[in-house]
Amino acid sequence: MSLGEFDIIARYFANRAPRPDVLLGIGDDAAVLDVRADRRLVVAMDTIVDGVHFPSDTAAADIGYRALAVNLSDLAAMGAEPAWMTLSLCLPQADASWLEGFSTGLFELADRFGVALIGGDTVKGPLVVTVQVAGWVEPDRWLTRSGAQPGDLVYVSGVVGEAAAGLAVIQQQMPETAAAVQLRQRFLRPAPRVALGRSLRTIASAAMDVSDGLLTDLGKLCTASGCGANIDVDLLPRSAAMSQVFAADACVDYALAGGDDYEILFTVAPEQAPRVARELNAVCACTQIGVVTSQGGVQCRQGQQPYAIKRTGYDHFAGAQQST
Amino acid sequence: MSLGEFDIIARYFANRAPRPDVLLGIGDDAAVLDVRADRRLVVAMDTIVDGVHFPSDTAAADIGYRALAVNLSDLAAMGAEPAWMTLSLCLPQADASWLEGFSTGLFELADRFGVALIGGDTVKGPLVVTVQVAGWVEPDRWLTRSGAQPGDLVYVSGVVGEAAAGLAVIQQQMPETAAAVQLRQRFLRPAPRVALGRSLRTIASAAMDVSDGLLTDLGKLCTASGCGANIDVDLLPRSAAMSQVFAADACVDYALAGGDDYEILFTVAPEQAPRVARELNAVCACTQIGVVTSQGGVQCRQGQQPYAIKRTGYDHFAGAQQST
Repeated sequence: MSLGEFDIIARYFANRAPRPDVLLGIGDDAAVLDVRADRRLVVAMDTIVDGVHFPSDTAAADIGYRALAVNLSDLAAMGAEPAWMTLSLCLPQADASWLEGFSTGLFELADRFGVALIGGDTVKGPLVVTVQVAGWVEPDRWLTRSGAQPGDLVYVSGVVGEAAAGLAVIQQQMPETAAAVQLRQRFLRPAPRVALGRSLRTIASAAMDVSDGLLTDLGKLCTASGCGANIDVDLLPRSAAMSQVFAADACVDYALAGGDDYEILFTVAPEQAPRVARELNAVCACTQIGVVTSQGGVQCRQGQQPYAIKRTGYDHFAGAQQST
Repeated sequence: MSLGEFDIIARYFANRAPRPDVLLGIGDDAAVLDVRADRRLVVAMDTIVDGVHFPSDTAAADIGYRALAVNLSDLAAMGAEPAWMTLSLCLPQADASWLEGFSTGLFELADRFGVALIGGDTVKGPLVVTVQVAGWVEPDRWLTRSGAQPGDLVYVSGVVGEAAAGLAVIQQQMPETAAAVQLRQRFLRPAPRVALGRSLRTIASAAMDVSDGLLTDLGKLCTASGCGANIDVDLLPRSAAMSQVFAADACVDYALAGGDDYEILFTVAPEQAPRVARELNAVCACTQIGVVTSQGGVQCRQGQQPYAIKRTGYDHFAGAQQST
């Protein structure tokens, strides 16, 4: 069926749940927003591309969900509370059922976090989706990648590796056991750690989300902080589902180098460590996996032995193979 | 040559002219911005696609310029002062000379308007560029499409049609006469009417930018305002360059239906009309082309005769041919 740009916007994207701070929403040349003088504005933008960030046969609802989830994860890593989003939707054709699915997935997550769609663009072209989110954080309370100090403890939320394992389940069309389905959902429906990020504001010395793989992202955090880190493979949170589907070695590989988990990697000064157990674990399980060192680089050990890293994270332009 | 995502950002996009309201810029999970309690935030997002919004052989510098220009035009149409931008760059490969050109064109315009690049995403895929801009406007002073009243006068800034004519010059590889080159530049380097938009805040009853063609966009303004308009073809601003290259009929076609001019279409209450001549023409020539009516729809006349419209504007998904 043929739908015009204005039909698409009116049918699938306009007139959703209002926010009082949206003074002028979708439909004009731009949106007009009321800002908070007592907060700082936090802005993130992420793009997902058909066949690069998700398999080409991914359901439209999962693509819509993902486009926002990866952005909310960035806000979570800053300790910010989400408020608004804009959407650029580049589509090969205007298919009503695809658009219905996409908007359902997008707004399922948006409504959960009170995020209003305030504008964007709908154009014809290859399937590329860009979302920008904006949110609020208290002055001087945002989290960065650059605050880690030698001696700080390195934590990760939840479990890492399951999303990459889930992508393997999809790509290899593995049997749909309960564990395989669980892994697949971890790839398709990552849960942005917004509540955890808010709780981390007064606890963490540095934070970032794990999108390109634990080691790659920890390396970025260390570079930004001018330090290094030692992590112990035996401390990594265990995934029962991953262990049921993959060999032990592959599980460690996925945990260290698999991307797309959207968990939060963070560092905590030793004296703040009791607060992690007391204040964070009610929000989401957090596991200490290592320590920050003064030496540059990330050292990976298993007990007392160096652990040889078989995979590295994903860099779109480095010519390296995708890790997942 | 092969460049990683971080190299691309560091070499071509980071560490540009700072703004004091950018508390944390490129390089973390998100940007952190200081907001103005005495202003409203205005946000626009536009996407341009290779082969859809610009010919595939367009120079990288012109693509970079265009990606921002079309967004600044939206802010201009709201009466807002630009402040920040984010950039999503989806690229088939990381070519150093292309990136150098793109960033030169982008920042040429950004620096002219004091716009800071605060973040974004760089991914591999087909050439699709999304920019979001944000800026500021005084409370209750933003311009919308919806404020036109019957009896208001309809104006357009500058000259319309030249950009579409310029695209024809490019596509038909016409001889490079001075007039043809001027038209081509009007397509490749549209000048966002930011200063005009600021001046219009206390003069115009409604405003929007002309991106899809004068008649199409005037129709949108009328729909948003719940009114109609009569315009007179003989009142359209004349383009000497266009007349030198194209027949008279084609010139009218381009003026009425050609897109990509990024001029400002606005309406003014009759009692404000003297201010247009007095206050606006120093900023940029503005021409009255018609009047707002209570009847819906846009009527196009030449003197007392109805003028038959041969082209309509461009809607990506309506299955219609592109007007330009």
